[in-house]
Amino acid sequence: MGGMVMVDIDDVRAAAKRISGQHVRTPLLPWPLAGSEVWLKPENLQPTGAFKLRGAANAIGTLTDAERSAGVVTYSSGNHGRAVAWAARRYGVPAVVVMPDSTPAVKVEGVRAIGAEVILVPAAERERRAEEILAERGGALIPPFDHPDVIAGQGTIGLEIAEDLPDVDTVLVPVSGGGLVSGIAVAIKALCPQARVIAVEPELAADLAEGFAAGRRVGWPHEWTARTIADALRVPLVAELTWEHIKRFVDDVVTVPEEAILQTTARLAMSARIVAEPSGAVAPAVVLTRPEVASGRTVAIVSGGNVEPSLLVRVLSEYAT
Amino acid sequence: MGGMVMVDIDDVRAAAKRISGQHVRTPLLPWPLAGSEVWLKPENLQPTGAFKLRGAANAIGTLTDAERSAGVVTYSSGNHGRAVAWAARRYGVPAVVVMPDSTPAVKVEGVRAIGAEVILVPAAERERRAEEILAERGGALIPPFDHPDVIAGQGTIGLEIAEDLPDVDTVLVPVSGGGLVSGIAVAIKALCPQARVIAVEPELAADLAEGFAAGRRVGWPHEWTARTIADALRVPLVAELTWEHIKRFVDDVVTVPEEAILQTTARLAMSARIVAEPSGAVAPAVVLTRPEVASGRTVAIVSGGNVEPSLLVRVLSEYAT
Repeated sequence: MGGMVMVDIDDVRAAAKRISGQHVRTPLLPWPLAGSEVWLKPENLQPTGAFKLRGAANAIGTLTDAERSAGVVTYSSGNHGRAVAWAARRYGVPAVVVMPDSTPAVKVEGVRAIGAEVILVPAAERERRAEEILAERGGALIPPFDHPDVIAGQGTIGLEIAEDLPDVDTVLVPVSGGGLVSGIAVAIKALCPQARVIAVEPELAADLAEGFAAGRRVGWPHEWTARTIADALRVPLVAELTWEHIKRFVDDVVTVPEEAILQTTARLAMSARIVAEPSGAVAPAVVLTRPEVASGRTVAIVSGGNVEPSLLVRVLSEYAT
Repeated sequence: MGGMVMVDIDDVRAAAKRISGQHVRTPLLPWPLAGSEVWLKPENLQPTGAFKLRGAANAIGTLTDAERSAGVVTYSSGNHGRAVAWAARRYGVPAVVVMPDSTPAVKVEGVRAIGAEVILVPAAERERRAEEILAERGGALIPPFDHPDVIAGQGTIGLEIAEDLPDVDTVLVPVSGGGLVSGIAVAIKALCPQARVIAVEPELAADLAEGFAAGRRVGWPHEWTARTIADALRVPLVAELTWEHIKRFVDDVVTVPEEAILQTTARLAMSARIVAEPSGAVAPAVVLTRPEVASGRTVAIVSGGNVEPSLLVRVLSEYAT
């Protein structure tokens, strides 16, 4: 792994101090439907609707005042872009979010309403355009997952789980670029070494499941991962830095079918009274579809809740009524 | 007020110790939609889906071992019945819930699934039948609101608000029998004397608003309060004990129209990612309809989330898509 810097528990503890008061300290919710040994960690309750706020707030928080005052830049049409916009506003610094020009207007307006500048470009040019803006204006890039400060920020979820349920046996975490599962695994393995950390993917975006079995990073074509309804989990290849953490700290990778993701979205609304986006229902779906994986005292991460109303209506109509 | 025993902050503190670990210590959720000065207290996230668990757990917890082992009895088709069933199971004691024979099967099954015995009787005979069961079998009655231990249990919500936001200016609380607002007002007035506590009712069940203005308890006919969609708020007359607390500690009573209740239910789902029942949306509805009441740093209680899927679908279809 060459010169790569691994995140450790001290980084996660420092992140927790840094972001305190900027995020919601989410409780563990007993999930009665699935038995008394399962809890949900509802990161959809963050003010931006997803866990991404933790990593963004930590990454912006680690900048020096001089770096920060030049502003921050990111590329994301989804939860990370919104998180960077939110955290930048809390720090009182300008934010630029580069989005594909195909992004739905409601998502563009959402980020603008928080106060960030949105720049729309063809999807393939996002990263290049973000680099151009940095070259022109200065400022710091806040990448969505492939960064130690972002990983450490997401790791604060693991720290909170360890505080609330020190004798946890299994932690279920959805995976896309791998920042969330990397951070949580670092914290859990340090504080609850008895616990297993299981990464979860949609069957239709199972690049990590394949790579984990093969012992090397395996990428999937974009057209494949684009098939899943879990749109926040379509990254077709985990990052280099997150892969190093996953190899070392994650115990297994499992997958869930599309049907179970939708059904779980409905069940979370009716039995846990929280609104998850399909990507946020992927980890809890394991409890319903593969109970043998959710063994012992189990925590399932609900990673986000930014769902289109029409999709929520469809899912509830089909699976809850 | 004769021999009535008023609940005080020490009772609420004792309740908090007693129920610790039995309820979810809910966070305050910033509600971005409504500006940066509003937070939601999401009691719909309790494992039974409503704040009622706090009062039930405290009331059962104050019983002696001998009293408790004889079991507990209550009458309620709704959130209180479910709460008593849940808390009794946690204490390992039998529970009987007397319900009207018109109760939907899904609610009956919900309480049975927790482990309580359900007895169905004509609606008018509920209280009498509960008394009969107590006479036959022994055990303790856990009333839904007119009891100091129940009020003190609900008051733990106020304690948590004071811990998380000591400089709160306004607390918005839905009212039916008055147990919730009484308990919260006791805690808030003791710990945050600068804050106003505002009781909120549907316009169609505004018996307390009328009584508060008149300075005496005023009851409405059942047929009137039955009109509101907020079915947990149809109690047509606050209790004697809660009235004494409301008179002393509540600053004002305001009402919201049906349309705003439904619209707020949809907005809570999409912008705060929580599922509220219409009764649970009544207090946050004030923020949208009467912003002058929600002045300064405002907390709105979301009291419950046990909504029929078909109603949730209807509300989302109408107001969110």
